[in-house]
Amino acid sequence: MEFSSKLLEKAVNEMSQLPGIGKRTALRLVLHLLKQPKEQTSFLSQALVKMRDEIQFCKNCFNISDVAICEICSNQKRNHQIVCVVEDIRDVMAIENTGQFRGVYHVLGGKISPIDGVGPSQLNIVPLVEKVKSGNISEIIFALSSTMEGDTTNFYIYKQIKECQIITSSIARGISVGDELEYADEVTLGRSIVNRVPFENSFNNN
Amino acid sequence: MEFSSKLLEKAVNEMSQLPGIGKRTALRLVLHLLKQPKEQTSFLSQALVKMRDEIQFCKNCFNISDVAICEICSNQKRNHQIVCVVEDIRDVMAIENTGQFRGVYHVLGGKISPIDGVGPSQLNIVPLVEKVKSGNISEIIFALSSTMEGDTTNFYIYKQIKECQIITSSIARGISVGDELEYADEVTLGRSIVNRVPFENSFNNN
Repeated sequence: MEFSSKLLEKAVNEMSQLPGIGKRTALRLVLHLLKQPKEQTSFLSQALVKMRDEIQFCKNCFNISDVAICEICSNQKRNHQIVCVVEDIRDVMAIENTGQFRGVYHVLGGKISPIDGVGPSQLNIVPLVEKVKSGNISEIIFALSSTMEGDTTNFYIYKQIKECQIITSSIARGISVGDELEYADEVTLGRSIVNRVPFENSFNNN
Repeated sequence: MEFSSKLLEKAVNEMSQLPGIGKRTALRLVLHLLKQPKEQTSFLSQALVKMRDEIQFCKNCFNISDVAICEICSNQKRNHQIVCVVEDIRDVMAIENTGQFRGVYHVLGGKISPIDGVGPSQLNIVPLVEKVKSGNISEIIFALSSTMEGDTTNFYIYKQIKECQIITSSIARGISVGDELEYADEVTLGRSIVNRVPFENSFNNN
């Protein structure tokens, strides 16, 4: 792609560093900014830089937070003995939106994935194991995505905490509410039969 | 969407102002920036602000440029009598990439579109008409997209310059090179038959 302006080229190149944004999309976004008032560009830039410089991670659960201990961890009404282990802060947001979980979280910051060069040491696994060994936790819920990497990570953590004699659970895998059985994949359908629940439990959370 | 941090929320809100970027995509992009070194965010911000503040439009053709008259307009090897009228600078880049056009451009900055509140006065139409009336131009090539708005814009300009007795042409509409006839739409196929070209012209540009 040849640009008639170095300034434009630089902006497009920087924009296309973002994941899923190619050169063409970057050009479209940058040209949009050019058509808008200058304030929009400066607001965007300031918001990004301010966020990058000032954001903190909760010292307890590694969720993103504006303060040292996040709102969830400092909320005394929540059950601090039940810890839900998730991959990233988007998962915290998704579970919080359901309104079904009153425990606390532990954000790993990713999954073990040798192919992407992510080993256990790059994740917040050690603090989780320490938390469990401290004895203040009664249950760990594994809520990682159900992929090879997710299962590996679950298993890696499980091995280190299994002697602590706490309850470990995994979120239920099954047919989505509203889905038709005939289109479900075999593994999910199989698991949903093996892990069937008492009928009276099947409608109390809607 | 509920955020655990105001800084994060602000960055996501600003990012999702961009066209085609929803809240979820914005969050994904912002979280990516958080995982990268701080420099990436500051480079991106600086590039955007610098571009927005310093970029210029060529005084002659309204293409984006770092100087007052763009490279194309100041290139004496090009034919300044043939002007290709395009909607936006991406079209200039696309035509330049073909290497088939040695004239100059005139960037309108959009199409007449009452539904989007874009009237002729918001486009660079007056300077184009003046350019034509100055008598230094021999041919105008309309290269706007072939939509209702594009055709309206072409016709609006055509009405104002038709008495100037210059050649006016429109880029050819037809079947794309490599496309199969049976999948082409009727209008395009019809036009490609009406506007057929001498056989020897059909392969001299490949």
